Amino acid sequence: MNKSEKIILTGDRPTGRLHTGHLVGSLKNRLKLQEEGNYEKLLIMIADSQALTDNWENPEKIRENIIEVALDYLSIGLDPKKVIFFIQSQVPALTELTFYYANLVTVSRLERNPTVKNELKLKNFETNIPVGFLTYPISQAADITAFKANIIPVGEDQLPMIEQTREIVRTFNRIYGNVLVEPTAVLPENKSAFRLPGIDGNAKMSKSLGNGIYLADSKEEVKRKIMSMYTDPNHIKIEDKGNTKNNPVFTYLEVFSTEQDFEKFLPEYKNLEELKAHYERGGLGDVKIKKFLLAVLENILEPIRERRAYYESRIDEVIQILKEGSIMANQIANETLKEVKEAMKINYFEEKELTEQYKKKYQNK
Amino acid sequence: MNKSEKIILTGDRPTGRLHTGHLVGSLKNRLKLQEEGNYEKLLIMIADSQALTDNWENPEKIRENIIEVALDYLSIGLDPKKVIFFIQSQVPALTELTFYYANLVTVSRLERNPTVKNELKLKNFETNIPVGFLTYPISQAADITAFKANIIPVGEDQLPMIEQTREIVRTFNRIYGNVLVEPTAVLPENKSAFRLPGIDGNAKMSKSLGNGIYLADSKEEVKRKIMSMYTDPNHIKIEDKGNTKNNPVFTYLEVFSTEQDFEKFLPEYKNLEELKAHYERGGLGDVKIKKFLLAVLENILEPIRERRAYYESRIDEVIQILKEGSIMANQIANETLKEVKEAMKINYFEEKELTEQYKKKYQNK
Repeated sequence: MNKSEKIILTGDRPTGRLHTGHLVGSLKNRLKLQEEGNYEKLLIMIADSQALTDNWENPEKIRENIIEVALDYLSIGLDPKKVIFFIQSQVPALTELTFYYANLVTVSRLERNPTVKNELKLKNFETNIPVGFLTYPISQAADITAFKANIIPVGEDQLPMIEQTREIVRTFNRIYGNVLVEPTAVLPENKSAFRLPGIDGNAKMSKSLGNGIYLADSKEEVKRKIMSMYTDPNHIKIEDKGNTKNNPVFTYLEVFSTEQDFEKFLPEYKNLEELKAHYERGGLGDVKIKKFLLAVLENILEPIRERRAYYESRIDEVIQILKEGSIMANQIANETLKEVKEAMKINYFEEKELTEQYKKKYQNK
Repeated sequence: MNKSEKIILTGDRPTGRLHTGHLVGSLKNRLKLQEEGNYEKLLIMIADSQALTDNWENPEKIRENIIEVALDYLSIGLDPKKVIFFIQSQVPALTELTFYYANLVTVSRLERNPTVKNELKLKNFETNIPVGFLTYPISQAADITAFKANIIPVGEDQLPMIEQTREIVRTFNRIYGNVLVEPTAVLPENKSAFRLPGIDGNAKMSKSLGNGIYLADSKEEVKRKIMSMYTDPNHIKIEDKGNTKNNPVFTYLEVFSTEQDFEKFLPEYKNLEELKAHYERGGLGDVKIKKFLLAVLENILEPIRERRAYYESRIDEVIQILKEGSIMANQIANETLKEVKEAMKINYFEEKELTEQYKKKYQNK
């Protein structure tokens, strides 16, 4: 695919601020894409409508986190000159596409979707599944196809969603004509970096568990969180042998630390292998490695924090960035919607064919 | 309810031209409403999007019938000066409302809807129920609430649909604030006139059975259909006793004939009771009553046919009527959508509150 042909769509549900898990899971990859510049469009969507499908009783939460997520994006260095940031609900064409695509998907097909099945289990909806939640793969197909996005960076758990979009594209193009573009899912290159555990050792960072390190956390919060981090529970005295597996401190170091970090902050060790070996044979205390992790993380988080402070004092500018991005997103999505309606031949007032057809029909009567 | 408060919404799926069954089932009532003029707005929707939910593979059929249905409306005397005619797909706000209402309804609630259940059986979808079809009660709630319609003339089989809308209205207003209006279903006064059988005696007129008398049928077609009409199969010779029950000719006469018709076309009988009595005791042939029915129907259909011919030669004008009505419908629906988004607080760029809230938040940091 040529540079001029790559249209990349990605984004987040604004259900909470972004944390270091997002940083390694998706944000760093977006930055990399931005730096490489090898694309026609890079769109980042704040998926508020999608977030409402399981937060409909709490719209205030979504509303607040739109700004937080936008601040997080800007703070890591994503650049509105290179990226189109937009808010899903501000692009009405997406709901129109969702509406028409809903005819092309069966209920049982949605119920078989492994991602949906899994999320339904997590949410404890049981038999009270909101329609908007079951059907959100259709809405996602609208998001992707509206921008003719062909590259969708996703985690492995999202592959069935992209497959659903591909099916809708094929069905639409077969029935109505070749308008929509089949997207390709792109998995992260570094699978180990894919999911960062919580500071309590829980597999996932989550707001409700309070076990995440957030991009917006202050230096003091980060310090407090790292110093209270779960390690090997059998490593009680310094001389005890320690376990580096299922030990979040070491998982974090694996993800974040570089040889330069060792040189700068812990020159007694050349690299992580040496540090691990010492911890495993005993004689290395948790406080020392936690302090090192803090230094490593602060090295990453400090510039992020500074950029965030810059934008926090310029909220008007942040909202303007979202507004301008949404205007651009509307232009693109409306263009696709126009083509979709043309193909479905439901653009009655924009064409002369229907009139001519009927004039002829009743002329010869 | 005062005149100024009644907002009436009704309409048809454009899946075929309208027939005499529609005339007695709904069209005459609409005319009556128009004549009485006791309303703020009378909206008639050509429900093409809804028709697509079970005709998605055949959009051409829907497209053609939009004009046919519009011609039928105008031919019976519905007046664009008194009625807002519009095409559902030309009012995008309806899909946006559908999208947000989908969060307020559960899948099992839709599956329990008796109207949907019944239609699913009729359509033979079995397990392959298209999402758009299962969810069309939500779309219908969008249609009704977009115009704040409070009076919905319906058949008894549609009552569960209106109940679904009422539920959505209550849920929305409870969560987001009092924006939507609960509609009232109004059943036809004359229940016997509610469903006209096919000319073959089948309970329902349908295009596929070819058993309907259409408003657009020529005089010759109407004659041919009436003369071939199913009657009492045991009434073979004129002197045979005849059955007037389950005899469509008599059902039609019950619905359409008046004492004036007897005076004018069949003065030997004072009214339908006398005619029936004669048929039942024997000595009255089918041809005679069919000729009478033809005269009665032609008395109704001829002016309709003339008005239709007038508009058939003015297709531009018909399309203009639909266009102007759709523009009006858009204005009303967009106004409601604006209120809905305000209530949901997802109108981020139309208000200053979000900016102020965040400025304050980060000022004090």
